[in-house]
Amino acid sequence: MSDMKISPFAPEYFPTLPPLAGFTMATAEAGVKYKGRTDLWVLQGQPGTQVAGVFTQNMCPGAPIDWSRKALRIATDGPRLVIVNSGTANVFAGQAGRDAVLETAEGAATVFEAEATSIQLASTGVIGVALDASKLVDQFSKMTLHADGWEAAARAIMTTDTHPKGASATAKIGGTTVTLNGIAKGSGMIAPDMATMLAYVATDANLSQAVLQDLLNAQVGPTFNSITVDSDTSTSDTLLLLASGAAAHQNISHADDPALADFRRALHDVLFDLSQQIVKDGEGISKFVTIKVSGAISDASAHRIGMSVANSPLVKTAIAGEDANWGRIVMAVGKAGEPAERDKLSIWIGPHVLAEGGQPAASYKETDGAAYMKQDEIVIRLDLGLGEGGAVVYTCDLTHSYIDINADYRS
Amino acid sequence: MSDMKISPFAPEYFPTLPPLAGFTMATAEAGVKYKGRTDLWVLQGQPGTQVAGVFTQNMCPGAPIDWSRKALRIATDGPRLVIVNSGTANVFAGQAGRDAVLETAEGAATVFEAEATSIQLASTGVIGVALDASKLVDQFSKMTLHADGWEAAARAIMTTDTHPKGASATAKIGGTTVTLNGIAKGSGMIAPDMATMLAYVATDANLSQAVLQDLLNAQVGPTFNSITVDSDTSTSDTLLLLASGAAAHQNISHADDPALADFRRALHDVLFDLSQQIVKDGEGISKFVTIKVSGAISDASAHRIGMSVANSPLVKTAIAGEDANWGRIVMAVGKAGEPAERDKLSIWIGPHVLAEGGQPAASYKETDGAAYMKQDEIVIRLDLGLGEGGAVVYTCDLTHSYIDINADYRS
Repeated sequence: MSDMKISPFAPEYFPTLPPLAGFTMATAEAGVKYKGRTDLWVLQGQPGTQVAGVFTQNMCPGAPIDWSRKALRIATDGPRLVIVNSGTANVFAGQAGRDAVLETAEGAATVFEAEATSIQLASTGVIGVALDASKLVDQFSKMTLHADGWEAAARAIMTTDTHPKGASATAKIGGTTVTLNGIAKGSGMIAPDMATMLAYVATDANLSQAVLQDLLNAQVGPTFNSITVDSDTSTSDTLLLLASGAAAHQNISHADDPALADFRRALHDVLFDLSQQIVKDGEGISKFVTIKVSGAISDASAHRIGMSVANSPLVKTAIAGEDANWGRIVMAVGKAGEPAERDKLSIWIGPHVLAEGGQPAASYKETDGAAYMKQDEIVIRLDLGLGEGGAVVYTCDLTHSYIDINADYRS
Repeated sequence: MSDMKISPFAPEYFPTLPPLAGFTMATAEAGVKYKGRTDLWVLQGQPGTQVAGVFTQNMCPGAPIDWSRKALRIATDGPRLVIVNSGTANVFAGQAGRDAVLETAEGAATVFEAEATSIQLASTGVIGVALDASKLVDQFSKMTLHADGWEAAARAIMTTDTHPKGASATAKIGGTTVTLNGIAKGSGMIAPDMATMLAYVATDANLSQAVLQDLLNAQVGPTFNSITVDSDTSTSDTLLLLASGAAAHQNISHADDPALADFRRALHDVLFDLSQQIVKDGEGISKFVTIKVSGAISDASAHRIGMSVANSPLVKTAIAGEDANWGRIVMAVGKAGEPAERDKLSIWIGPHVLAEGGQPAASYKETDGAAYMKQDEIVIRLDLGLGEGGAVVYTCDLTHSYIDINADYRS
């Protein structure tokens, strides 16, 4: 998508993702669909690498998702592989799609001396076109795996993304420093339900799959599951957390071990950073929007109300038009199907209270709202006045560019 | 909205709505917001007129909705009034909004010799601005009610509508012919939940409120509740059915009386016609889309799956781009949260089967799909292959004009 404008929220540079003990990788041009760019990434974890993951809750998942769900539960003595291609999602491609998954896994298993059934596969791109696995398999034997290459990996898995997405953090477990590296892709069809398009986080920490899975489950709610670009939940969402075990810290048997406090913080930081990069690269974005909900009857209710506002086309177009149209926010709160009382609802944009007690706030001036809405980053705050439930969700506006990208391009 | 393009699906002319025994009406220019056009409609039913209604399920309804819900249950010996203004929705306007409702009802009650508490009120336009009731009350004493004027009424209640919407039908009850006239408005913020923006159906039939309400409840599902423009449920949705009782047919005590068969058919026809006119005047529409769902586990499940497809921005932009992108339809089926099995799902556009058995149909040619998508009216058919549940929903595409209308105009 060389003619696509870079998101105004793209980071100035790709962050430093240092080599991680226990992991090697490579990318290649397999020519699945795109020409002149990489579209294949192979990540190898050393024997004993533990893998946790969450996948799309869409009821029509892709063949790679079916395969990878099973592969999570396979124990193996050999290396642990992740194979990702862009250009086709290999979703709803019937037997040809299932055959392609098997051929890819077996081809990789032979070259990289891994167990096929333990390999994590992911494909991203157009739905309904089977992957030509031979294009990937042909590359495997030509690839040399290195400890470095995270930015190249982030580029290889892009589709409509306007820039590669990465994040890194370090944490202490006991006295030992471990590192987490994460990459992600995603720009449209983003309303993750358990995970987003594709995101991979690797660490040299020495943690079991059970601990990793618990950590991941606890963090996915306030990060990937709190962003939405267009309310459309992908068929391919995958978030993996891999741990090579190369770090020599103390033994950890539970996700709630106090020694993991700093690691939990670092994992949250990486997941949050990646999920923010995805929504900030939302298709056609001109404004980044944070919606903070408080006073709901529960956190879950607050989340659904926030998502109802974040997904409302009328709210999103008003923001694109720099219109502090809080009437549409009232509408979106009221249609969420959650407890709400008109006369207890308060609404702010940035520092300005717009509405309270079932009417426009006496102190509010339209000129204040108009000035605030010219900012690139908009914060909407809602208080339901009913209870203690809160949530924060993140979205973007709905612009002409979203229509251009999705009416003119089969993604 | 004089600069707004007329919907390509607008009827060529407004249908003939004949005078109805027992009803008189008038319109006026009250100057609530618009200049040089009517914005006020008064409808009067003779003493004994029965009224049934359904209102928005939005949890933040307008003050006129609160008032009118109560007014439905008031019995009165005097005439029955409906007062509608455009230009402001009088929603979320606090005490000033409630005061405006009372002032309007009391003003009308004095002039038209009705009981204030039995008057049906509705306001449509921007949210968050209180109605200046004096502008309406000033007009009441200047208005002369006539038996004719349905088209003028349909024009007076328009906001972003590009044309007035009306429908008429006759039905036999026993040997007596009765007439039903209906008008409606609505173009954006259309995802009715019990009713749509504003719709009024009047008849000279002699039916009790209980019978009218049962008839209305039975018909609102497959008509107004089966359309969506933008997934946003208004705070002002109102659908009223009024019967003057002027016709001299036999006594009817139940909605399921066999003598009402033809009336039920006529009521369905009028409601269906009006609801179709609303979605076909959807903001920015370039294509009208019918989504037929079969094989779901229940009718309710089929309806939710149809709505998930109808509200998907990615499906709607693909249709705008004339792209038979059935992969996005698969995605939207799968995200609906309803039972679905990828490998049992079949998808057609028009006569062409696109996908079946979890893969693209062998017979499908992209050129067939591309040719079909150039049509103005698109039919998408889905079979879940799970059960007997079915539903049909109606929507429009998502175009640049929708963004123009809603990013540039505070509606």
